[in-house]
Amino acid sequence: MISLTRENDVFTLTMDAGENRWNTTFVRDIDKALDEVEASSGPAALVTRSTDTKFFSNGLDLEWRQDPSAHPEGGDADAFGAEFMALMGRFITLPVPTICAINGHAFGAGFMVALCHDIRIMREDRGFLCANEMAIGFRIPSAELALFRHKLSGSAFYETVQFSRRWGGPDALAAGVVQHVASMEVIPELAQQIAEQSAPLAANRELFGDQKQRLFGENSVLNLPHGAAHMLKNADQFG
Amino acid sequence: MISLTRENDVFTLTMDAGENRWNTTFVRDIDKALDEVEASSGPAALVTRSTDTKFFSNGLDLEWRQDPSAHPEGGDADAFGAEFMALMGRFITLPVPTICAINGHAFGAGFMVALCHDIRIMREDRGFLCANEMAIGFRIPSAELALFRHKLSGSAFYETVQFSRRWGGPDALAAGVVQHVASMEVIPELAQQIAEQSAPLAANRELFGDQKQRLFGENSVLNLPHGAAHMLKNADQFG
Amino acid sequence: MISLTRENDVFTLTMDAGENRWNTTFVRDIDKALDEVEASSGPAALVTRSTDTKFFSNGLDLEWRQDPSAHPEGGDADAFGAEFMALMGRFITLPVPTICAINGHAFGAGFMVALCHDIRIMREDRGFLCANEMAIGFRIPSAELALFRHKLSGSAFYETVQFSRRWGGPDALAAGVVQHVASMEVIPELAQQIAEQSAPLAANRELFGDQKQRLFGENSVLNLPHGAAHMLKNADQFG
Repeated sequence: MISLTRENDVFTLTMDAGENRWNTTFVRDIDKALDEVEASSGPAALVTRSTDTKFFSNGLDLEWRQDPSAHPEGGDADAFGAEFMALMGRFITLPVPTICAINGHAFGAGFMVALCHDIRIMREDRGFLCANEMAIGFRIPSAELALFRHKLSGSAFYETVQFSRRWGGPDALAAGVVQHVASMEVIPELAQQIAEQSAPLAANRELFGDQKQRLFGENSVLNLPHGAAHMLKNADQFG
Repeated sequence: MISLTRENDVFTLTMDAGENRWNTTFVRDIDKALDEVEASSGPAALVTRSTDTKFFSNGLDLEWRQDPSAHPEGGDADAFGAEFMALMGRFITLPVPTICAINGHAFGAGFMVALCHDIRIMREDRGFLCANEMAIGFRIPSAELALFRHKLSGSAFYETVQFSRRWGGPDALAAGVVQHVASMEVIPELAQQIAEQSAPLAANRELFGDQKQRLFGENSVLNLPHGAAHMLKNADQFG
Repeated sequence: MISLTRENDVFTLTMDAGENRWNTTFVRDIDKALDEVEASSGPAALVTRSTDTKFFSNGLDLEWRQDPSAHPEGGDADAFGAEFMALMGRFITLPVPTICAINGHAFGAGFMVALCHDIRIMREDRGFLCANEMAIGFRIPSAELALFRHKLSGSAFYETVQFSRRWGGPDALAAGVVQHVASMEVIPELAQQIAEQSAPLAANRELFGDQKQRLFGENSVLNLPHGAAHMLKNADQFG
């Protein structure tokens, strides 16, 4: 479902569960992969990708959320909200450069995962980024709003959360939602290349990670009393 | 002076007072129109426009401000500041999509009104948006500064408030101050079309409006201890 | 080392110390020049430039920092951090329009100086803006982070501080890091022209300066409890 490989200084986290919908089991498997990344030392970077050619991650595992007992493979339903948010808080402050290879749709929680990476590469011809909560009548959790606000420009943020805008590759690039677009074939090599170039920044993990904490954490130097990572790490539910 | 019409799910608020300068009577008439919009239920959106082909709104009613007793039609001068600001706070958190058809100059308070809408369409060939306070030696009220900062990018904000930049259509579009530009003839149909497309978002008024409160209100999830709507709604004067 | 000249309403502050690296003597000389600017009245603007054709300012005087006693001309080493930051806080709230003519590299502290001006003009063909701390393993001071965040877009800020991006002229212009680019030959006349056009804004020094305090100072109306100027003015060290 989740695999972690390493080539030179680059770790690659591969999600291989079809639409890659989020439940507690999925969260914990990824958390373990991050343990392995953080247990390394020296130059390193992380690329996150999906094997599915249509979906990067299509959001929460709704079938499991609606009837957890019928889908025990999804894991502890009560633990999900806080653990998912905390995982996002871990991603956004991971002490190595992180590159997200968005090779398909990233909806809701999948969009959040992408935004928690340092650099995003999106498929240029297909796939959308979308926080569709308003369009389908769901409330956006506060920590998710904070994350979007920290990672998007004011206008991109507003269109995303209030009007459920679907971002295709070229529009996402123009609005700064992603930093690169590329064809399906080129994304892997581009991600590897960016990861290798930025891996030396992780030689000093403490410095690189500490600054992410200062940007997004509780006592953010950005003058924001409650940083995005702090809110993500302290959300007691997905709400 | 003010009229409100409805076509399908779209309310249109028309300002028909020449330069559409703001005094207490004008504020209260618009407030009543918003009561009618909010009294509706189901899908809805609001388009705000002006009948004047040169001015959308040219700012405060200065003649009335300087000598209210000579212009009793302007209404209670003492009540103006707080009521105008509160109306802006109501606009920015209105629980339906709001589209501003800026078919001419929008100066000072007129610029504020436009910014309190969700989506702005500006005439491409004529007219300016401008907060001209610095240029003419006036202090910008704190709630107005907060509004500009919440709705503009950092650089557009700084040019607007510190250098009184006059934004023509194409420049305003490039800087994200407006979302669309169009010819005078096309603006009405474009506004109607955007309004109809977004009206379904208002089917759940509570959700759509609650999120605007969370973005701009007192306990904004954006980590800002004093949101723009909160400041607008609690300004005790225009200063 | 530092000279201040005046032509019409425009003061020009010229740095003439080669790479223009910062030590306490350099800080105090510039502080005195700003005293002269502030002692004037009426319309005025300030242009800051360098005589070196390769460097605008190449950062801290590292040789002096590493062994102050061997370089007594650099001045009191213990006083440096707080006085440099306070000077930046003074620049960012100077009550006249400020234009920075960046005619070469601006690294670290040199980049900070440029960002503390209202308007930046950068050489189009050569030179980089860069905060290279992460790349060379140094911690970015909190007040510097706050300054970058206040003056750059979210994405430009993140690339600048977390990935030590080197900004060339065209990229800096596209990302809003600078407002203009020009050739080496054109920069002086363009700076003079912008300064003359904006000088009238300083006719009311109190108003123009007070608003900068309200944007960046301690009780910033931007809802940020600790504005950039406040942090700069109260940093007790360069750390």
